[in-house]
Order: sequence, then C-alpha cells, then structure tokens
Amino acid sequence: MIPTRARLADLAAEAGVSTATVSRVLNDKPGVAESTRAAVLAAVQALGFQTEPEQSDGEGLIAVMIPELANPSFAAFANQLALVLTAAGRQMILCTAGPGGTSEEQYLDELLGVEIAGIISVSGSPADSLASHEHYQRLIDAGVPAVFINGYASTVDGAFFSCSDAEAVTISVAHLRSYGHERIGLAVGQLRYQPSQRKRAAFLAQGFDESSVVSTFFTVEGGQAAAARLIDAGHTAIICGSDVMALGAIREAHTRGLDVPGDVSVVGYDDTPLMAFTNPALTTVRQPVPAMAQAAVGALLTAIRGLPTDRAEMLFHPDLIIRQSTGPVHAR
Amino acid sequence: MIPTRARLADLAAEAGVSTATVSRVLNDKPGVAESTRAAVLAAVQALGFQTEPEQSDGEGLIAVMIPELANPSFAAFANQLALVLTAAGRQMILCTAGPGGTSEEQYLDELLGVEIAGIISVSGSPADSLASHEHYQRLIDAGVPAVFINGYASTVDGAFFSCSDAEAVTISVAHLRSYGHERIGLAVGQLRYQPSQRKRAAFLAQGFDESSVVSTFFTVEGGQAAAARLIDAGHTAIICGSDVMALGAIREAHTRGLDVPGDVSVVGYDDTPLMAFTNPALTTVRQPVPAMAQAAVGALLTAIRGLPTDRAEMLFHPDLIIRQSTGPVHAR
Repeated sequence: MIPTRARLADLAAEAGVSTATVSRVLNDKPGVAESTRAAVLAAVQALGFQTEPEQSDGEGLIAVMIPELANPSFAAFANQLALVLTAAGRQMILCTAGPGGTSEEQYLDELLGVEIAGIISVSGSPADSLASHEHYQRLIDAGVPAVFINGYASTVDGAFFSCSDAEAVTISVAHLRSYGHERIGLAVGQLRYQPSQRKRAAFLAQGFDESSVVSTFFTVEGGQAAAARLIDAGHTAIICGSDVMALGAIREAHTRGLDVPGDVSVVGYDDTPLMAFTNPALTTVRQPVPAMAQAAVGALLTAIRGLPTDRAEMLFHPDLIIRQSTGPVHAR
Repeated sequence: MIPTRARLADLAAEAGVSTATVSRVLNDKPGVAESTRAAVLAAVQALGFQTEPEQSDGEGLIAVMIPELANPSFAAFANQLALVLTAAGRQMILCTAGPGGTSEEQYLDELLGVEIAGIISVSGSPADSLASHEHYQRLIDAGVPAVFINGYASTVDGAFFSCSDAEAVTISVAHLRSYGHERIGLAVGQLRYQPSQRKRAAFLAQGFDESSVVSTFFTVEGGQAAAARLIDAGHTAIICGSDVMALGAIREAHTRGLDVPGDVSVVGYDDTPLMAFTNPALTTVRQPVPAMAQAAVGALLTAIRGLPTDRAEMLFHPDLIIRQSTGPVHAR
C-alpha cells in the first residue's frame, strides 16, 4: 500500500512536506506532528495513491562509501558492489572516506549537490562508536535512502547487512579447540569499531578471559604487535580480526623463529582473494561478500522505489576455510 | 597564451563552434577548416582573451575508469587516485568497466549526462589493441579532458603515464642472469594488451626466442597454464606479467613437487601489497603507483584549467624488489 517514489513527491508537494515525511505517515511511523499527518492524509484523499511500484529504478548515481581500497576486504566489497550495481543498470560513485582523507560527512555534504539516488556504506560510521550518524539520517530524511554493510546503528532509518562476527569467533574457537588448543588469544582492531566489540563479546562468551584479548589496529603491524603480546603470555593460537592482522601475527611468529602452525596456530578473518597463497596458506573465516552485496543492493533499489524495507540487521553466516596456518597444539 | 576554460566557452559561443575547436585553433593544431579558424580568430579579436589561468579547478566529478578492483594492482591505483584526488578537493566516480560488465564506452555515454570535469583511465581501452578509442576522443572534443595510466594511443589527445614494461623485463632478466639462469621464459596475458606486447618486445630484444614467450591470461590460472608449458620446455626461470600470474606459476611448480626457487625461479610484476607474505615471498617489479597517480592527477587538473598538457607518454621507472622466489640456477 505504498506509493511509488514519483507519487510520494506528488503527495509531498500537495501537503507541503518532504517525501520522507509522507513516507513516515504512510508507514505509520512516529515522529510526525498531528497537523502534518492530517495534511498528508488530506493529500492522499485528494490525489489518491498508487499501490503498485513502478518497474523503473529511476535515475541518479549510487554512492558507495568505503574506508579505503588498500585493504583487500574493502576492495572485494567495492568490486562486488560495482558488478551487482552495473548488472542492475546503475552507476556507482565510489567515495573512499576515512581517517586521513575526506570524512564521510564531508563527502555526503558534497553529494547533496549531485543527483544521488541512494547510498551504500561499507564499514562506515555506524560501525564506529565514536562517530556521529547524523549525516546519514539527514540524507535519508531528504529522500536519499541508505543501506549499510558491516555497521549497525539503531538510530538510522536504513537497512543493515552484516557478517556475523559472533559466529566467526565461535567457529574459529571450535576449530582450534578440536586441535587441542586451550590458550587461545583474540587480536582485534580498535574497540571503537563494532566488529571488534562483537568479536570480543563472542570470545568472552566462550569462557576466555579479558587478558586473552588484545586490541591494536586492523593492519599488518597491528597484528604483529598483538601477536607479540599474546605469544609472550603463552597463547598457542591466535584468532585475528582481519586477514591482514593474521599476516602480521604470522610474521611475528616467524620473526621469533616459531613455526606456524607447529608452534602457533593463526586464524584470519575475511578470506580475501590471495590468502591461499600466503606462507603458510591462511586458515580464515570467509565473509559471503557476493551474497551481502546482492542483498544490500536489492534493499537499496527497493527503498529507491519508495517501497518499505526491513530495518532489522540481517546477519550473514561466515564459513571457516581451513588451510595450513592451524594445526594440533604442541607444548612449547 | 592559452585562455581559461570559461573564456574558451565565450569564444566558442561567439564563433559558433565547440570549445575543443577553439582550443585547436589557439594551439595551432591541424584539422580545423580555414573558415572555422577565421571565425574563431574573429571571436578572439572581438572579445580578447585572458592569458592568465584561473586558480580554481572548478566543479564536476572526476571519473576514474578501471577494469576491475579484484585485481590488487587496479585496487592499488584506485586507492591512490582517491587519495590524491581527495587531497586536491575533487570527488571521484569510480567506474569498473571491462569484460563481463559495463563497457567503457557505455559508461562514457552515460557520463555525458552527468557533470564530469575529467577522466582518468587506468589500463583502459588505449591499452587494448582490439578496442576503439573513439569514445575518449569524442569526450575530449566535448571539452572533457582525459589522462591515461598504462595505456597509450597516439590517436587520442590525452596525457599518458605508463610504467616502463621494457625496463621491467630488462631488470628482471638481468637479475635472473646474475643467478646463472639462461633458460628464461616470459608469461604474459593476451597479446592484444599493450603491456604484453611491450614486455614481449623487450624480452625478445634480450636475445630470447619466440618459443620462450607464452601468452595466456593475467590471472592465477593463466600464470599456472603458462608455467606448465615453460617448465615442460625446460625453463629454469619465469618472468610473469603480473603478481597474480606469478602466484599461479608458483602453484604450478609446487603442484609438480618442484621447489621455488630451488628448481624454478619466478619473478612477478606490480608488487601489490601482500607479495611479501606469499609462499615463497615474491621477487617482483614494483610499479611506482603513488608517483604515477600524482602525475596523472596533476596533468588532468592542468587540462581542466584549460592549460596545455604534454601529449608525450611519460614512462616511469620500476624497481626490482628481490625476495625469496628467485635464486641460483640448478641443473634439473
């Protein structure tokens, strides 16, 4: 019973309100003044409204916000989103917004001047507990829908698609325990980021201690520093928050003359394309990038048509890819 | 003595021709009818023209054309271009145009409807001897300048920035010869691509035979297939057209129970970020991505200001990064 986007605009013009407000009224959402609601309903009565969606997805670019492309996981998402958007006949603007460059907010402010039909945010500000999400809500209120990959914020009216960090940790722990490991450590990036928080919580829920969690950065050097502390503390296995961190953890083990997995087992996260070629080939947890990209684009195109989308967070199940960086525990 | 872009537009309107035509006349380029030239010069006489460039880079998005982001070399260029463009206050549209997706030409046709200030093409159609470049010249004629990374076409009015494929091969051969290798093979992607042609020519110039060149695809599987043929033919060292091909070549050697570099030495090309972590760590030739991105963006912003840019191809010197995939020749 939701009108198409064009129809929303007609109703908004008639009622003298934004299309977002019309949408809120038609979807019976809170936060609309009674007088406004009455004006929108009067407009509906005057104009009627169309219940069938138009088939066209309309015009306008899709902006994809991504922290950077040097991280192979982000490059994989960007590549897949480009493929799916292209197949849907849409062009994407890729904005690499993050620390050290243009902020997401600056980009979004700039984009208000360009015809943007919708936004896909990958590991964006909703994933950062220190960041504001107001800029997204502002755009959404202006009629530009947004969907979010790997970042959830209950205060934003978007659709959310995340890989389950909790399950990633659970299957990693189960795999290492099957090899006899008991001293397992977790190496994650900064705890301001949701995936770090979620992995930590799932790890502690497995009966491990706070002292077995080290938070550094999602980089090779971050993984190396975290592994140094975890190995010093006697851990025989390390679960990492990203493949790149895992490569750093392996480097630290090698630097100490330790064998992986003979002395230390290492599990990554992401399964970015080249992990089968590392030394040793990395056991890691694969994010289902194609499925997540497809779902996010589908939801965004639905929202662009003015149809309602589910605001619940969709959690995708990761797969454990067992290669050569994990093995039976040895007494060191 | 070149007017600014705004001034170009004034002259074009006065003369009833395109800004590109005005530019050709003012730069004394061929291909303009005498009557048109006279009309432009009359407009110059009537309006005068400004000789100092404006300082502003103006508005409009920069479109970056790149074949795909799954290839880490292309991701590295995209990431670096995003950094440099952001620092220059410009937003980029990243278009992944290539086989199996939207073609470059389709993208460019679409982009004619959006306000695009300029185009950066990475390994685009000028690098493909089977592709047409007309779409670029059409845009350039419409006043949208283009610069090209790793693809040169003498028929396009752009600026060109390439890593020297010839030098990459020369330094790879010298390195392998210093280890005593004489049976050296070259594995490249399809010969329709300029980098393949250039590497092949440089390789043959080093005294090697046609039979030591295998052309497949720029993928892991392409490298694996090429290595199979080169190893069968008794080569002790393989120079690959990309890092990803080199990983395939190493996989082929490992599949046969051969040691790298004990039995076969392998050299890559690109030095994408994770090559220090492969098994064995890859000896490869590094493209100077930051310098190339900086130069290309600089030239594009210069062209956007209406200033002349050099059309010669700038060749950047690559560095050989020696790791563990190359070593002394052994009799097999």
